[in-house]
Amino acid sequence: MTAYWAESAYVDGRLAERVLLDIEGGRFANVRPDSPTGDAHILRGVTLPGFANAHSHVFHRALRGRAQGPGSFWTWREQMYGVAAALTPDGYLALARATYAEMALAGYTCVGEFHYVHHGPDGAPYDDRNAMSAALAQAAADAGIRLTLLDTCYLAGGIGEPLSPVQRRFSDGDADTWAARAADFRADPERIRLGAAIHSVRAVPRKEIPTIVAWAAERNAPLHAHLSEQPQENDACRAAYQRTPTQLLAEAGALGDRTTAVHATYVDKSDFPLLAAGFGCFCPTTERDLADGIGPARGLADAGVALTLGSDGQSVIDPFEEMRGLELDERLLSQRRGNFAVGDLLAAAGAAGHACLGWPDAGRIAVGARADLVTISPDSPRLAGIADPLAAAVFAGTAADVSNVIVDGQRIVSAGRHLSIDVANALNAAIEAVTQ
Amino acid sequence: MTAYWAESAYVDGRLAERVLLDIEGGRFANVRPDSPTGDAHILRGVTLPGFANAHSHVFHRALRGRAQGPGSFWTWREQMYGVAAALTPDGYLALARATYAEMALAGYTCVGEFHYVHHGPDGAPYDDRNAMSAALAQAAADAGIRLTLLDTCYLAGGIGEPLSPVQRRFSDGDADTWAARAADFRADPERIRLGAAIHSVRAVPRKEIPTIVAWAAERNAPLHAHLSEQPQENDACRAAYQRTPTQLLAEAGALGDRTTAVHATYVDKSDFPLLAAGFGCFCPTTERDLADGIGPARGLADAGVALTLGSDGQSVIDPFEEMRGLELDERLLSQRRGNFAVGDLLAAAGAAGHACLGWPDAGRIAVGARADLVTISPDSPRLAGIADPLAAAVFAGTAADVSNVIVDGQRIVSAGRHLSIDVANALNAAIEAVTQ
Repeated sequence: MTAYWAESAYVDGRLAERVLLDIEGGRFANVRPDSPTGDAHILRGVTLPGFANAHSHVFHRALRGRAQGPGSFWTWREQMYGVAAALTPDGYLALARATYAEMALAGYTCVGEFHYVHHGPDGAPYDDRNAMSAALAQAAADAGIRLTLLDTCYLAGGIGEPLSPVQRRFSDGDADTWAARAADFRADPERIRLGAAIHSVRAVPRKEIPTIVAWAAERNAPLHAHLSEQPQENDACRAAYQRTPTQLLAEAGALGDRTTAVHATYVDKSDFPLLAAGFGCFCPTTERDLADGIGPARGLADAGVALTLGSDGQSVIDPFEEMRGLELDERLLSQRRGNFAVGDLLAAAGAAGHACLGWPDAGRIAVGARADLVTISPDSPRLAGIADPLAAAVFAGTAADVSNVIVDGQRIVSAGRHLSIDVANALNAAIEAVTQ
Repeated sequence: MTAYWAESAYVDGRLAERVLLDIEGGRFANVRPDSPTGDAHILRGVTLPGFANAHSHVFHRALRGRAQGPGSFWTWREQMYGVAAALTPDGYLALARATYAEMALAGYTCVGEFHYVHHGPDGAPYDDRNAMSAALAQAAADAGIRLTLLDTCYLAGGIGEPLSPVQRRFSDGDADTWAARAADFRADPERIRLGAAIHSVRAVPRKEIPTIVAWAAERNAPLHAHLSEQPQENDACRAAYQRTPTQLLAEAGALGDRTTAVHATYVDKSDFPLLAAGFGCFCPTTERDLADGIGPARGLADAGVALTLGSDGQSVIDPFEEMRGLELDERLLSQRRGNFAVGDLLAAAGAAGHACLGWPDAGRIAVGARADLVTISPDSPRLAGIADPLAAAVFAGTAADVSNVIVDGQRIVSAGRHLSIDVANALNAAIEAVTQ
């Protein structure tokens, strides 16, 4: 049993003071506000539940600051494919390890990796056909955070279009082969869980979708899909199928309470009820970086969709930026302020994010829950003078203000440093290897 | 003579390596790339010219994280007025000192303060009728950054509307009285310069504007004005004057090469040529926070307007966020990427920003220019793995990554700490005093 004492902590939807936290077997055994410190480890400042990064393409970290020239989402995608083409299992491991460690520094205790770089550069499987999945699992273990491996089915270069050469390594050929390979990966229910992803209605033909849906249902596993990130996807889907991407997924049985629609930037209002049982993952920093636009976050939430957040393209790794981005981009759209309460934004990055990744027992500081803790330094000039530490964190906090991170009871970040990885050096080396 | 040696530095629009910088009398006496270190002070990482914060309402710092509930710009303004009502010369000094010190930590070496809290709470002048201006000058001197005091004329509560009670302390009654008071303030040409501001066409009747214009012209001083921040301003101006706010200012002679139009969020395309000779100050973090919307930055720049940047409402104090905000918000508007080159964004925060505040000799690392330097730590995980340090700074840097700041040859920030002010504690104390 390990004990921590938090100066203040976010418990049951409100800030509690002087909270004694006993941890046993990686879970909270006791959560006691208004307690003396005893001999517990002291966490100064405000302590929050761990953040879930519900949508990550980890290798995009190599593109940060590199692909900012004129163009669109589609020209950016060509640059991204350049990095995808350079990945090897070892290179993927090194890049993912360093990037997951950067996520740990920022307060992410769990990541959902939307993983589709499955095979060798020419499309031929590796000897271990899950070598790339194994690299991600090892990377998360090394960085100390939990992983939901969202094994992604990617079969086509567009609706009715063949794969481009670089896309060949993403494809298993058909959904049955994808399903067999994905089923073959050995997860670790305590730290690494398995989910499924339909890359998009662009990359998975309609007839293949039910196989992926059934695979996820058999395992009671999360099912994610990129949805209406760009107007072109909507146009192509309507032209091919006379339906919106949302309608297509709904008819294929892909929308339910284990489903996360990622982006949903251009979903139609009439689609909202179809998505209401599940999750909607917004990626504000990426959607701004990629010039995607601003999705209908408030509208989806009003329809019942549980919003979650992801760092996606890694142009920024900062859960605080994502939380306030959800609210601030809605302001740009609506010219109204206060669209989401602070608690809603914390839930999106916390409990809802973990739930959409298949960890309903994380993201809360409560007896029985997984013992994830993120402490924000009380010394930051950015947060000074703000009476409400929760509003301070959400509206003014940054990754740089995270001092301490605990995952499943294990401390992985202390005094703002990762305890086992020199993150900047690891990133430098890993990115150099894939951008030569 | 003091010598610094920068590992790399932004000189003449490009990155130079191993740059020896001799400083004499607060200016660069030599700028020599490819030099040995000698016995110079070493600046590790990338060193940029100082940033200019072209639009600041310093007391809004007390509102950070406090006024985020439902509403609009206009309901937020009521909360802002609550703080304005609580200011005293001593309280203003303490809050401005701490906030300018936070700006220094972020790399701002100069601030343009759009200052209109001139008088006592009931509107009666203080014994020293420039007591509030003097507080700002003292605050900037204490924090170590230069100040352009934009003495702001504020006479009405709206077009044809009386002042509200809290607005009385903003008003000098008429522009002649404003001009006499403003002229009476003793600046310090080396550190504190004086400029004029027309608060807006809402707060200054048309007939009073030429007096302010003449005052600024006599002194060859900067002239700033809030312009079309909200659609309501446009509507009210058209209703009262049958003109856009830009047309009104143009006819009053207020638009020229010393003029900065602040926000310009809702300027009409037909207004662009009228603004072309001057500056346009965007405040991306504030315009997002206040739900203002996204202004036509690229369109104005194409028309010839020199863009600059300001932290305005202080919801964030981070020049890197402002720089990339200009580009990223344009992406949300246009669905195109790469609207501004990295050099354009650095110029907006650097040389152009200083120029619009009346310091044309600052914002560049060049012989004869003011010796302002901002060094970004090479150890930040946020910036790791990015080949181009300029793109890294602009697209991934944060205030937390600034390690060293020099203003007019004086080092004010070292190892990320302000050398004379405990910034977080100063902010805590100053804000507590005005929010009781």
